[in-house]
Amino acid sequence: MARQLPQPHRDDIDLVTVLQALADPVRLELIRTIAREGDPRPCSVDCYDVDVKAATLSHHWRVLREAGVTTTTVDGRRRWVTLRTDDLHTRFPGLLDAVTADPA
Amino acid sequence: MARQLPQPHRDDIDLVTVLQALADPVRLELIRTIAREGDPRPCSVDCYDVDVKAATLSHHWRVLREAGVTTTTVDGRRRWVTLRTDDLHTRFPGLLDAVTADPA
Repeated sequence: MARQLPQPHRDDIDLVTVLQALADPVRLELIRTIAREGDPRPCSVDCYDVDVKAATLSHHWRVLREAGVTTTTVDGRRRWVTLRTDDLHTRFPGLLDAVTADPA
Repeated sequence: MARQLPQPHRDDIDLVTVLQALADPVRLELIRTIAREGDPRPCSVDCYDVDVKAATLSHHWRVLREAGVTTTTVDGRRRWVTLRTDDLHTRFPGLLDAVTADPA
């Protein structure tokens, strides 16, 4: 049965922590891929255009989850990631759109 | 005569670098104060609600300037800071508004 890994409540999501989570080229690429391709998305390293090992990718997913940017769902041996779009829009309107848009 | 300290050209402003500059509680407070109070604003430590020494504040201003978030103008012994609102809006629409808005 699928279960969610621990994550902060919407009201506890902190802007500085979210910015720290986003302020990394790999994590930004992950977030942009999910925003572009739709979610839930698998966690596996071959699903993203990033040059890191699986263990490093796990670390990045954890940072994003603990900051409140993503939800990770475990279903047997598979993990799925969802952007917390509604929660982030509610707390920091426009932020997610601004960082996932193609730069001018 | 007033002169500007070195800063990146608009086209060279990098999103990850901007996010790293913003992802700090002191720097976020500085940016929010300028956004709220209007600019140019003085650089001096007594103009902001932050608990840091002058040297530390200088470091934070440098990080913001080198990331392309602010312009620092030197006029004799005084320094003034301006948000690069137009440049940031052009490169990353909505980002500055999202991080300077009062959180929900």
